Amino acid sequence: MIDGCPPGLPLSEADIQPELDRRKPGTSRHVTQRKEPDTVEILSGVYLGVTTGTPIALLIRNEDQRSKDYGNIAESFRPGHADYTYWHKYGVRDPRGGGRSSARLTAPVVGAAAIAKKWLNQQYGTVFKGCMSQLGDIEVPFQDWIHVHDNPFFAASGDAALIARMEEAMDELRKAGDSIGARIDVIAQNIPVGLGQPIYDKLDADIAYAMMGINAVKGVEIGAGFKSVAQKGSVHGDSLTPTGFIGNNAGGVLGGISTGQDITVSIAIKPTSSIRTPRQSIDMDGKPVMVETFGRHDPCVGIRATPIAEAMLALVLMDHALMHRAQCGDVHVTTPNIAPPASPTSR
Amino acid sequence: MIDGCPPGLPLSEADIQPELDRRKPGTSRHVTQRKEPDTVEILSGVYLGVTTGTPIALLIRNEDQRSKDYGNIAESFRPGHADYTYWHKYGVRDPRGGGRSSARLTAPVVGAAAIAKKWLNQQYGTVFKGCMSQLGDIEVPFQDWIHVHDNPFFAASGDAALIARMEEAMDELRKAGDSIGARIDVIAQNIPVGLGQPIYDKLDADIAYAMMGINAVKGVEIGAGFKSVAQKGSVHGDSLTPTGFIGNNAGGVLGGISTGQDITVSIAIKPTSSIRTPRQSIDMDGKPVMVETFGRHDPCVGIRATPIAEAMLALVLMDHALMHRAQCGDVHVTTPNIAPPASPTSR
Amino acid sequence: MIDGCPPGLPLSEADIQPELDRRKPGTSRHVTQRKEPDTVEILSGVYLGVTTGTPIALLIRNEDQRSKDYGNIAESFRPGHADYTYWHKYGVRDPRGGGRSSARLTAPVVGAAAIAKKWLNQQYGTVFKGCMSQLGDIEVPFQDWIHVHDNPFFAASGDAALIARMEEAMDELRKAGDSIGARIDVIAQNIPVGLGQPIYDKLDADIAYAMMGINAVKGVEIGAGFKSVAQKGSVHGDSLTPTGFIGNNAGGVLGGISTGQDITVSIAIKPTSSIRTPRQSIDMDGKPVMVETFGRHDPCVGIRATPIAEAMLALVLMDHALMHRAQCGDVHVTTPNIAPPASPTSR
Amino acid sequence: MIDGCPPGLPLSEADIQPELDRRKPGTSRHVTQRKEPDTVEILSGVYLGVTTGTPIALLIRNEDQRSKDYGNIAESFRPGHADYTYWHKYGVRDPRGGGRSSARLTAPVVGAAAIAKKWLNQQYGTVFKGCMSQLGDIEVPFQDWIHVHDNPFFAASGDAALIARMEEAMDELRKAGDSIGARIDVIAQNIPVGLGQPIYDKLDADIAYAMMGINAVKGVEIGAGFKSVAQKGSVHGDSLTPTGFIGNNAGGVLGGISTGQDITVSIAIKPTSSIRTPRQSIDMDGKPVMVETFGRHDPCVGIRATPIAEAMLALVLMDHALMHRAQCGDVHVTTPNIAPPASPTSR
Repeated sequence: MIDGCPPGLPLSEADIQPELDRRKPGTSRHVTQRKEPDTVEILSGVYLGVTTGTPIALLIRNEDQRSKDYGNIAESFRPGHADYTYWHKYGVRDPRGGGRSSARLTAPVVGAAAIAKKWLNQQYGTVFKGCMSQLGDIEVPFQDWIHVHDNPFFAASGDAALIARMEEAMDELRKAGDSIGARIDVIAQNIPVGLGQPIYDKLDADIAYAMMGINAVKGVEIGAGFKSVAQKGSVHGDSLTPTGFIGNNAGGVLGGISTGQDITVSIAIKPTSSIRTPRQSIDMDGKPVMVETFGRHDPCVGIRATPIAEAMLALVLMDHALMHRAQCGDVHVTTPNIAPPASPTSR
Repeated sequence: MIDGCPPGLPLSEADIQPELDRRKPGTSRHVTQRKEPDTVEILSGVYLGVTTGTPIALLIRNEDQRSKDYGNIAESFRPGHADYTYWHKYGVRDPRGGGRSSARLTAPVVGAAAIAKKWLNQQYGTVFKGCMSQLGDIEVPFQDWIHVHDNPFFAASGDAALIARMEEAMDELRKAGDSIGARIDVIAQNIPVGLGQPIYDKLDADIAYAMMGINAVKGVEIGAGFKSVAQKGSVHGDSLTPTGFIGNNAGGVLGGISTGQDITVSIAIKPTSSIRTPRQSIDMDGKPVMVETFGRHDPCVGIRATPIAEAMLALVLMDHALMHRAQCGDVHVTTPNIAPPASPTSR
Repeated sequence: MIDGCPPGLPLSEADIQPELDRRKPGTSRHVTQRKEPDTVEILSGVYLGVTTGTPIALLIRNEDQRSKDYGNIAESFRPGHADYTYWHKYGVRDPRGGGRSSARLTAPVVGAAAIAKKWLNQQYGTVFKGCMSQLGDIEVPFQDWIHVHDNPFFAASGDAALIARMEEAMDELRKAGDSIGARIDVIAQNIPVGLGQPIYDKLDADIAYAMMGINAVKGVEIGAGFKSVAQKGSVHGDSLTPTGFIGNNAGGVLGGISTGQDITVSIAIKPTSSIRTPRQSIDMDGKPVMVETFGRHDPCVGIRATPIAEAMLALVLMDHALMHRAQCGDVHVTTPNIAPPASPTSR
Repeated sequence: MIDGCPPGLPLSEADIQPELDRRKPGTSRHVTQRKEPDTVEILSGVYLGVTTGTPIALLIRNEDQRSKDYGNIAESFRPGHADYTYWHKYGVRDPRGGGRSSARLTAPVVGAAAIAKKWLNQQYGTVFKGCMSQLGDIEVPFQDWIHVHDNPFFAASGDAALIARMEEAMDELRKAGDSIGARIDVIAQNIPVGLGQPIYDKLDADIAYAMMGINAVKGVEIGAGFKSVAQKGSVHGDSLTPTGFIGNNAGGVLGGISTGQDITVSIAIKPTSSIRTPRQSIDMDGKPVMVETFGRHDPCVGIRATPIAEAMLALVLMDHALMHRAQCGDVHVTTPNIAPPASPTSR
């Protein structure tokens, strides 16, 4: 359910489906082989091809769920999963498909964000881009966004040898019944200056909330991130010139408010918790057991995470664009915006 | 203003002042020499020594503000500061002391959190600890919490040579009119299992929001954080045994819900933006200018950040403790809690 | 979608359907003859017969919508309807079935409230009752709750002549193509003392919000309501005695917090806006037109409003019960509760 | 604290003080004789005479509190007061001045609303008016707004005999140590069409919430209110013509959204609960006691309620104006607004 979308935005399933297709399973041998077409239907909120301003309901059906795949885990707790915490919190556990903790619940996020992306693009020319910058211990140096769709990893690299090395690493992992983490970078280009709030709705705080809320994310950086620790102030602080900022260590956010530069975010995704390798655990009575996870799982959930991270960023930015219009809709300053909406072609 | 605090909690200024004293300026030569006693008064919400359940108002006065220190920056934008973004957002800028973007606004956070810390401690024996684990490019290996208060950096290290090296580095920076970043680690011990929500109030998402909302923070990690990227699933997933989890890569959160283990968080703090070194910038008309910042600034805002990060963690955990009681106040499970409230003595 | 329901509550469609049946169309000749079975399905949040603590999705399908019934109104604005306001707000208008302003959207409210009613009943023995106390200018003096289900009006009266008079009045209205308003009274019995907040979540304020949010409601009273205006303080203020309050002019709320007495609420429902009688209006260009509404409408929407008003009250009380447990879950006082949970049999 | 106010609004204490003066005690012999100057100071959020967009803190000090006046009520529960409910909710009771349940807390509401009134007036020419339409059983027929400030009751009547009768009634009550209720009508003129939401933020629901949240309010009506019950649909539904609506039974709200007509609201205020007449009650142990209230109380709190009700309406409307701009800031329709911003001179 998307509530609060501005009325009058042209919208159909064709605006949303391509984003879902980027995230869906089964696109290469390196991701889960579940057959989920993730076809989206718009149930409400659109009339004669435009949004009505009332809630937009999207429906994405589960098609290939096999509940039996999960039968053997109902009586024990899988390491790295939410089984133990749900059980203690609620005293009830619905083992079918991971329930609320399933990564499947990122599909509606991607669907909803397709609408935010379209609106932001129409308003400001905003564009979202994302890539994998690390797969396990393999770093993937950024070359150009143009490569992202030419390999199964969302790598912004045209280095065929590197891609081959990534493929091999994934094939080995799959054979070994193990999994690996990934680092994903996403950016938003052509964002207006002024989105965010000083304290309670800081733009970077809301981005961190959204990103850390993606399944399996364990770390979030904005701009220089953890590299800031070793930077000197004279290096980190992005200087201003009449023709633009020099550098973007800020990642497009200063004091909780967008600078108009690219918003740059990086996230750490842990290795998939569902692996075939047997591990120690306990059962519902606290007795020791060994747990193996069958079913069809991604050996690296990070591979499909790029569109999800873009989606989260888009949702946060659209919320802030509307909030900003609410409070500051008639502010005009004569000072030039030095980070104008001219899209850079690379990070 | 703290609204929603449970009634009946014994509370006086003496519970709050020590936390404020840990954060206040002027405690060593390595932090700002402003003389802010940060004395707290409780204005409401306490009667006959206990909380009444109605809002608690804390008052902390500014004592040593020298507005003239900021006079020279009213007409230009300091790199790394919120000047440019505030100006474009609001079309108005109050240059006195940084306004809403001042780090001074972390004082009330620390004050409020002192109440949360006391309540959590009474309910669950919860204890908060924090330390600096990196100062610029100097890593500070963890030895024991006992050392944190024996040096001006909140370093959990008894290595006198290391501390001396840190002091030298700070002295050099100060002379050079430059600044540096820091990494801070905080933990919460003795947290009940079950705090958090599956999707919209994930405990880790709320922690990320709170931490990224601290001034100058550019990165947040929970548990293994960015190290997860290179971990295999067989390594990262913390095994369960009848006597406890093996490892805490999860940082005490699985599926957005606390495991009962220590909550472990790490943050990156950028170098102070206010430095004496002249830098390029523009004025209100977009013309190039050079900016130097005088006034009395911390050469490493990270030094005073440890109590602030602990405070943010405490506020998030208390909110979640109350939310959990609302929904799940009568849940009982017979499965043993394998991460029981027995406090570890180190990380 | 119901989020935040405590886990472990036994729940099936059989708990919800009877409430929907009380509200559904077609139960007498005095209400709309649309054939909406309003059959509810639980899609999520229940496993093995109990709530899981995760969101409960209810699905109620539209079965008998005839969009053509509304075709003739797409180009003009019906008096008393939201057509004009939606059009000016959104610049887009979806004329099918009233869209978001349709009274049909009270069905999910009734469905959700069935869950709240069950939980409140299990926790506190809470019981909800409602009746029509006025139909147009016909006052319906309260006799006994027992009569409510013995007539098509939810009248708490066994006066056959009065019921006959109401039936006649409705038959005349229907012939005349006109409509009429109603007053509905609802109460909640066996509510614990202490629900509510002093200022921002006052129980009575939240009840007023919920009631005024029901389609067609134009007035809300709690306790003595507008009769309080002419009461003296010595009469209005309900005295306290060791065996209970004397009177309930407060309607069970003092200072925004429940007293433990019955919560009593009365609402005014305007006459149905969709009537066959032609009326003056304007079209989309502002030109004068005459508007008649065909389709199958309730000549008194108030007739079906009793279960809706009960539902709104139940939802507010359940929210407050959980909020109260969050903040005050461990408060104990030795002062006796003089409005104990012993259900009165009448108002 | 007012957060979210648009920046750039010229603001000083002189904009706020007159509203506070309308509400303050001691303006005639018919209200409490407490000497509260209610002088307001702006502590933050204003720089060089305009709002900065950051939180505006207003300070109004208590000057004439005599805590001893309340000493005798600490051990028993006053009928009609929140004593009993606070005690059971919190297990702690701060008897000084009514605490959070004091009508004194309406002063900041009036202060904050002065800012909303100014902004709404600048944007839309919005004007707020209010009057007392009933004092106990004395009805006060509306004549003209011009009279409101010519008598101590906010009566919109120039009927000297009627005013005299009201004065006598109040003098008698004061002698008798009793109190009485009142009905207050407020309107907002020159409100744009389109404020509100279809379901969760209905304008009328939010108004009802705000009004019922005022101390001592027991009923709220919008437009025809409870008179709607006896109206036929052909009478109630306000017809539309090219030159305006015919009638305003809707009270300016249809489907939760403003029509552009005057918003008209009526509220019932119960008699003051603090009266000298002794009444039955119980003490903290549940034992019977007699309670008399000394101190200086309004014999009709309704007399000072007019500016408070206006204030609540202004706050709701401003919130909705900003929310509307967020979502629908660029909607344009060519259909004429038939309730244009030309202020009527009477109700």
